[in-house]
Amino acid sequence: MIKAKLFGAIACATFTATAAHAQSSVTVYGIVDQAVRYVNDQGVGHLKTLSSNGLRTSRFGLRGVEDLGDGLSAGFKLEAVMFPDTGTAGSASQAGQLWSRDAYVEIGHANYGTVRLGYDINPAYVTWYENDPWFNIGIAGTGSLYDTTQNGPLRAAFGAISKLDTTVTYTRNMVQYFSPNIGGFFAVAAAAAGEGGTTATGAAKQVSVRLGYTGNAFQAAVARARTDAQPAGGTVNRFTDSVATTSYDFGVAKLAATWREFKALTSKETHYFVAAIVPFGVSRVQATYGRVNMSGTVTTNLAPGTVAGSIDANDASMWAVGYIYNLSRRTSLYTNAVRIDNRGKSFLALAGGPVVNASNFGGKASSALEFGIAHNF
Amino acid sequence: MIKAKLFGAIACATFTATAAHAQSSVTVYGIVDQAVRYVNDQGVGHLKTLSSNGLRTSRFGLRGVEDLGDGLSAGFKLEAVMFPDTGTAGSASQAGQLWSRDAYVEIGHANYGTVRLGYDINPAYVTWYENDPWFNIGIAGTGSLYDTTQNGPLRAAFGAISKLDTTVTYTRNMVQYFSPNIGGFFAVAAAAAGEGGTTATGAAKQVSVRLGYTGNAFQAAVARARTDAQPAGGTVNRFTDSVATTSYDFGVAKLAATWREFKALTSKETHYFVAAIVPFGVSRVQATYGRVNMSGTVTTNLAPGTVAGSIDANDASMWAVGYIYNLSRRTSLYTNAVRIDNRGKSFLALAGGPVVNASNFGGKASSALEFGIAHNF
Amino acid sequence: MIKAKLFGAIACATFTATAAHAQSSVTVYGIVDQAVRYVNDQGVGHLKTLSSNGLRTSRFGLRGVEDLGDGLSAGFKLEAVMFPDTGTAGSASQAGQLWSRDAYVEIGHANYGTVRLGYDINPAYVTWYENDPWFNIGIAGTGSLYDTTQNGPLRAAFGAISKLDTTVTYTRNMVQYFSPNIGGFFAVAAAAAGEGGTTATGAAKQVSVRLGYTGNAFQAAVARARTDAQPAGGTVNRFTDSVATTSYDFGVAKLAATWREFKALTSKETHYFVAAIVPFGVSRVQATYGRVNMSGTVTTNLAPGTVAGSIDANDASMWAVGYIYNLSRRTSLYTNAVRIDNRGKSFLALAGGPVVNASNFGGKASSALEFGIAHNF
Repeated sequence: MIKAKLFGAIACATFTATAAHAQSSVTVYGIVDQAVRYVNDQGVGHLKTLSSNGLRTSRFGLRGVEDLGDGLSAGFKLEAVMFPDTGTAGSASQAGQLWSRDAYVEIGHANYGTVRLGYDINPAYVTWYENDPWFNIGIAGTGSLYDTTQNGPLRAAFGAISKLDTTVTYTRNMVQYFSPNIGGFFAVAAAAAGEGGTTATGAAKQVSVRLGYTGNAFQAAVARARTDAQPAGGTVNRFTDSVATTSYDFGVAKLAATWREFKALTSKETHYFVAAIVPFGVSRVQATYGRVNMSGTVTTNLAPGTVAGSIDANDASMWAVGYIYNLSRRTSLYTNAVRIDNRGKSFLALAGGPVVNASNFGGKASSALEFGIAHNF
Repeated sequence: MIKAKLFGAIACATFTATAAHAQSSVTVYGIVDQAVRYVNDQGVGHLKTLSSNGLRTSRFGLRGVEDLGDGLSAGFKLEAVMFPDTGTAGSASQAGQLWSRDAYVEIGHANYGTVRLGYDINPAYVTWYENDPWFNIGIAGTGSLYDTTQNGPLRAAFGAISKLDTTVTYTRNMVQYFSPNIGGFFAVAAAAAGEGGTTATGAAKQVSVRLGYTGNAFQAAVARARTDAQPAGGTVNRFTDSVATTSYDFGVAKLAATWREFKALTSKETHYFVAAIVPFGVSRVQATYGRVNMSGTVTTNLAPGTVAGSIDANDASMWAVGYIYNLSRRTSLYTNAVRIDNRGKSFLALAGGPVVNASNFGGKASSALEFGIAHNF
Repeated sequence: MIKAKLFGAIACATFTATAAHAQSSVTVYGIVDQAVRYVNDQGVGHLKTLSSNGLRTSRFGLRGVEDLGDGLSAGFKLEAVMFPDTGTAGSASQAGQLWSRDAYVEIGHANYGTVRLGYDINPAYVTWYENDPWFNIGIAGTGSLYDTTQNGPLRAAFGAISKLDTTVTYTRNMVQYFSPNIGGFFAVAAAAAGEGGTTATGAAKQVSVRLGYTGNAFQAAVARARTDAQPAGGTVNRFTDSVATTSYDFGVAKLAATWREFKALTSKETHYFVAAIVPFGVSRVQATYGRVNMSGTVTTNLAPGTVAGSIDANDASMWAVGYIYNLSRRTSLYTNAVRIDNRGKSFLALAGGPVVNASNFGGKASSALEFGIAHNF
């Protein structure tokens, strides 16, 4: 991370502003996270890999804040995912999308809140991952329990695209308003333009809201997002994403519980997880138990080799346990053990294992062990 | 923007140079520009978008200058376009072209001028955009009046490629010489190798020259570029690009006028614009009136659904008015109102609107309004 | 190059570490190298180009080291190739692989060595290029003598992929151990997971080892790598890569000799080069003479228009001479003259020339001259 106080300059500017207002700070920052991973998919096989993002998403970015005086400030953030095991960076599915994690500019006022324009994590996704000890990512993150490869509301609404290109994580073309924090309470409202695009290009119209409270030890938030998703060549589908989360830090341990529900057409996908983080000096142990419950029927955008009908039986659950040893504030060693148990035709598998599908892996278990390094800069 | 004076180091260097000469400065810099935009295309429809680059092209880059002593200096620039509304960066049409705005190294001498090697804005394009208050870009920039979707010399010579991959903006494989400024007068000469490539990969042989004068208030320049363009599978076409511009800063207002002419095969495309910038304290109002006049006939590389023949009737004009409020030297709020009036089969439309073509939009008008934030770092 | 000492911060960290351990340094760095090049391919034609990487590979990157105390340290490196003549960056053949030269994290101890996880130059390639005055790259680098376009062990094992995606340069998914330097002696051992991928995506299982000695003037190293390469749709091929190198710095000149042998299936490719670097004040002259000797037969993954059989006659040799004038520790002017002589059906050509193939160029000579600037930041 590079950080420097300096006097800003504007290309083509021909006038002089008060130096105090032009003072700024820009930061080059990132995380490199690599783990040696072993994944076993029951009845299919096992694979050893070097994998990225076991503890934190590997990334690099630029960010900055400018104090405009009188409580006003401006800021920006540009952040790219990366996979150091192969050197790839940016979206794996959207060509040219380097800043696949964040690209926005914002103007804020201490009393009146902040308006942010650009590509960003949406309010529903924040509410989902904020109390997951692995922030939804990696094999141990609760993101292992949802995927557009499975028949359900995500696939029905968005089609066979990467789950990262649906609106349950990031949203394009978004205008967001963040209220100031008033006595611990805060609100976020967002609207995104569909721009006449399709979900194949990551475009979808979305409105969302998030309300929450943050105290000394207690925290809680709810969020709801509504998306009009239109797969290429398909019809517009209404998709709703509802989330509620709460956590309490007891000092010896922080406990959390989160609920999320996706709905589209005639199907529903409900997630729950409970999590605990227990610190020991420079170490911590963290664990998650999660479940996904599919219900209703699917009729469109079906996974290959499947037929329309009920998805009630296709549920799954996961256990994740991790031990993290902090060598410094910036560098950690970690190990994670994770297991997913599928039921019915569900074939969720931990990343880094062999290729699976509904017919060779439906209802089976995926388990994994990994040892890694996460380094912040 | 990060800027730091430091002592340089060279990979693999085993000798020591004079520290005074090794002192250097490198800068990480950029602009994030996002606007809420409404575009209405007469008879086709309207669209709301979050769009990039209403006031300035969103970008990030690295640049640096090294003082070599005795009047000599070395420098480099690497600059990428980006679209924060979707997180994409680099060229939208040339795979892997991250540094889509600049990638060069240069050696200069205070008395003898500068030699620059690499990918860069070419001398004709500089002369075209330097007096446009929007520097050619965004819906309000005069770049809205030319496009390779239209039949004319650009499409005839380069084929159906992005206008950004023609040589009327940037040029690959270029050797440039910049004279020193002598009593206000300066000259630029450039040559680019075609390298046996085709325009589909952005390659074309080009020679160009720019001459100008910069005084306290008065400025003028002329430029001419000649390109041998070869579309993939096609023949080599001679394309000429002639530009003249002048401006005068009266203090209460800066006025400018620019003329440009593209010629290829049997067709010609002539642009004119007049522009004014009027500053008020930390604000300014700026306006442009532009026209494009097509003439001659086209016989090759025709737009879909069109036939060979005269393009004389396919002209267009535009109005753009903007108000910019500078919150600081680095951060501005702005609003732009723009209208294009097409004539004949011209179907130029402002970016961010619905998809249009010659049959549903030929001769119609496109109008837009936007509100945005531009932040420099 | 930007370098700043600062106190690190970790996203989401809630505890405080000793400030002395959190001190760190991060660097933004790179090289921009551009040359005007003329290549003549005997009997085919000649071409003038502006080319990248005549002296050093153009690149940009981020790197950093964190002192963890007690002899421990953590570090990372992210480095991308770039081609300033066109503005492209990252791998030309692997979509999204921005950090195409390095992407790793490492933990090291002064007494016990370093463990590095990620994408990196492999131990065999280091041993090959470290004594090449041009570090294998550019027209003058000894990399001009091997290519997967030629029938031989590289093409037989890896298929028709870019030579940069074989494991004779970089390796994905690698775990490396670097011993400490003990009395001048050092060792490196590495293992890379194939991850069930194919060589078309740059994936291959590899184990490698490197042993060496570095003294004041004398240096020597040997390395061996074994790869299980599987082209898409093909069978697994065992590929071995053996290298030995030595150099001695006599003060007035540094002399070096290197040998390398690729083996796969029924064919073998043997390389030798000798090199000299002679410094004169701020200048130096450097020269290389290299040979490649093909032997055995090929039966699979044949180049278009060729038939199975003996490759014994398809050898080649090269001469490279360069003069480098250092304007500072960071900026150099250079000129290189290079010639390749092919024998039999070998059709190795210097980069930047016309397109050649076995039928129009087999057994012919390629020669080139270039003048360039290399600037480090």
